[in-house]
Amino acid sequence: MRNILLIGAGRSATSLIKYLLDHSSKEDLKITIGDLSKESADKFTKGHPRAKGIQFDVFNQALRSRAIQEADIVISMLPASLHIEVAKDCLLYHKNLVTASYVSNEMQALDQEVKSKGLIFMNEIGVDPGIDHMSAMQVIDRIRDVGGKMLMFESFTGGLVAPESDNNLWHYKFTWNPRNVVLAGQGGAAEFIQEGTYKYIPYHRLFRRTEFLDIKGYGRFEAYANRNSLKYRKIYGLEDILTLYRGTMRRVGFSKAWNMFVQLGMTDDTYAIPNSEEMTYREFINLFLPYSPTDSVELKIRYALKIDQDDLMWDKLLELDIFNTEKKIDIVDATPAQALQKILMEKWTLQDNEKDMIVMYHKFGYHLNGANHQIDSNMVIIGEDQTYTAMAATVGLPVAIATLKILNGEITSTGVQIPIAKEVYKPILQELASYGIVFQEQEVEYLGYNPKGGVVS
Amino acid sequence: MRNILLIGAGRSATSLIKYLLDHSSKEDLKITIGDLSKESADKFTKGHPRAKGIQFDVFNQALRSRAIQEADIVISMLPASLHIEVAKDCLLYHKNLVTASYVSNEMQALDQEVKSKGLIFMNEIGVDPGIDHMSAMQVIDRIRDVGGKMLMFESFTGGLVAPESDNNLWHYKFTWNPRNVVLAGQGGAAEFIQEGTYKYIPYHRLFRRTEFLDIKGYGRFEAYANRNSLKYRKIYGLEDILTLYRGTMRRVGFSKAWNMFVQLGMTDDTYAIPNSEEMTYREFINLFLPYSPTDSVELKIRYALKIDQDDLMWDKLLELDIFNTEKKIDIVDATPAQALQKILMEKWTLQDNEKDMIVMYHKFGYHLNGANHQIDSNMVIIGEDQTYTAMAATVGLPVAIATLKILNGEITSTGVQIPIAKEVYKPILQELASYGIVFQEQEVEYLGYNPKGGVVS
Repeated sequence: MRNILLIGAGRSATSLIKYLLDHSSKEDLKITIGDLSKESADKFTKGHPRAKGIQFDVFNQALRSRAIQEADIVISMLPASLHIEVAKDCLLYHKNLVTASYVSNEMQALDQEVKSKGLIFMNEIGVDPGIDHMSAMQVIDRIRDVGGKMLMFESFTGGLVAPESDNNLWHYKFTWNPRNVVLAGQGGAAEFIQEGTYKYIPYHRLFRRTEFLDIKGYGRFEAYANRNSLKYRKIYGLEDILTLYRGTMRRVGFSKAWNMFVQLGMTDDTYAIPNSEEMTYREFINLFLPYSPTDSVELKIRYALKIDQDDLMWDKLLELDIFNTEKKIDIVDATPAQALQKILMEKWTLQDNEKDMIVMYHKFGYHLNGANHQIDSNMVIIGEDQTYTAMAATVGLPVAIATLKILNGEITSTGVQIPIAKEVYKPILQELASYGIVFQEQEVEYLGYNPKGGVVS
Repeated sequence: MRNILLIGAGRSATSLIKYLLDHSSKEDLKITIGDLSKESADKFTKGHPRAKGIQFDVFNQALRSRAIQEADIVISMLPASLHIEVAKDCLLYHKNLVTASYVSNEMQALDQEVKSKGLIFMNEIGVDPGIDHMSAMQVIDRIRDVGGKMLMFESFTGGLVAPESDNNLWHYKFTWNPRNVVLAGQGGAAEFIQEGTYKYIPYHRLFRRTEFLDIKGYGRFEAYANRNSLKYRKIYGLEDILTLYRGTMRRVGFSKAWNMFVQLGMTDDTYAIPNSEEMTYREFINLFLPYSPTDSVELKIRYALKIDQDDLMWDKLLELDIFNTEKKIDIVDATPAQALQKILMEKWTLQDNEKDMIVMYHKFGYHLNGANHQIDSNMVIIGEDQTYTAMAATVGLPVAIATLKILNGEITSTGVQIPIAKEVYKPILQELASYGIVFQEQEVEYLGYNPKGGVVS
């Protein structure tokens, strides 16, 4: 029996564990699930004969090293900042490692040692990052293999509510960490390149410079720019590309409405509000509006944001019940972002019978045989239910498949890596397709952002 | 002879040095001016028999401790972050110290030791901070002395161009560190209280929530909120005050126009622009506007900022020549803020024959004998020329006067302090008046922000 140690069994681990258990007999696997409490680990094993739950505390060195020594391969689904201790033990005990997280500098620093020991530390193999890398590199390599030259690469992902459960005015519900949604885009200007020119968008304008994306059968989406679109420029080998842009997808209208909170300063996470615990929603909103002895919070917010009487923006605010005079923030020393999250979670939490959706959209512009071409490629995955969500499937299945392929020696390149090599992404994408995780491709006219080749400035 | 060591002789030191030299015979003073180069120190001594220039490098411990040992009192006009080394030597060699800078945590930490040695480390005794503290505390103490209770304190300061030299559309020129002007308001939301309610303004709205202030003979000004209005709440003894607000004064229209740069992201100081050195002003502006093969930078900026054809905002942009296709940023790895500063300095630098102006405005609301009252108090100082500027006078004279009064034993309270004690501010304000640094006071109707005592929310 080969022992797979999975550390950190959260909501996103359902599909991952199901895959491993489903393959456990045929592949002769034993699945050890480690969590802070053995009890919560046991919930995932469900008494399966080839699975067992153990207590695992990443800061307990004895526990940690024993569990890792007993494993044949390790999957860490811990928060990104906690991988490094696991990685060091994997190095010590010669175990391969799989994570769905971004490669930290600390993790990258292990690369030489990992290679010298012939090990594989595969990272960024969830959905975003993960499926985005693999699906993009597959098309980029195909274009290059026939002699094409990349002109443009744009890539968008969104975690959204499925159309059948989309019943609020924002067309949005939390399907992942709500905190990340509230803080999205903060920390610096978004940077990207268009037609060879650098472009920057400050946070407070990010949600007003969106672009539209249409997906057949699913209608129109919008996307706002991610902070650093250029992160993978070199890694993907796109140093000379004219246009490089990465963004986050939402349903049309979300960004314009979200911008209301940004404008008022309600997404700020840098200071604590005095007496936030006892503060009503209405009092919280009023912190960001000028004092007036006569004007209501409603009028002040309409005036501050220039919201007309019949503007849908207004209904979106009302739907969130932000003017409520009874409901309290109920968080000690809350930052504005934390207080806003509290308000939003009341309305944007998926109900038991509701489903999530993952959408991804790539645009590949290239030059081949004297002409410009473009391939658009997109993926839509709808969750089955609140256990087997689209998020859990798209994060967990690539992790699970990669783990098994490493264990079986089908993936062999060593080092700290992300899934951009053909040897890695090809078999994984192939197997993902059998789970319905597929991209629809279509050739479209390449326009770029300068279709007539004009020069203006 | 008593030896005064003045460290860091910049442009702001002219009036300070003049005062000390003018008093040097009568007070039997010797003035030692230390600067990184002896040559630039000598420029300030102008061969005066009681003055001498020396080389002083704050990081050269031998130089530093020798100079400080030989002094009877030390004035540090170094950048705020460099005071601490000087302060430690002053402690070591039992010398009093005067600075015009904010008290750093490191400086504050010396308080007990300074007191135990019977020393005076007087800080924040320039104009802002400095004259603002003294002039405010004088009125606040007066109100309290007759049994009044403070309801409101608002305080505003501005370094501006004098009316006779005010010849651009922005009604603004740099009279102090331009970098601080470009970065003003950054680093977090502005926080203040109005009628007992906390209020927050995020940076990207700071310049759209101004208030007007009128000064007789000088017309109308506007003010935007400083970042932390509550910093002196406890120090001034205003823990229970209903309204506490500090702001920066500009001529009306400046903030609305400045907001254009804020909105576009051109004041960001957190990232470097690739190839900034070779970039034209026009290319720089275009970084912050969407790509277009057909629309000009002019049209894009008009659209992005919703500037009508006949809007004065447009003329303000043209006046700065920001669309120039020839002029280059000419700074390697410039941040947007640095590039913007370069563009502005071309237009906003005071010419040799031009004068600066310092304005300060306080509002004191209080309750006394069953009624509410308000005193408004303001000060306007116009510079003599480009050497004896209003800034140099209002920063340097309080420093000089305090230094002499400490030297002469007229100020005696020990410790790390700021000039808020009556014993300190009273004689200093008295002497400042003889230099024309006086406040005009008037009683006005107290309205506060809730004149009818209504309760709305």
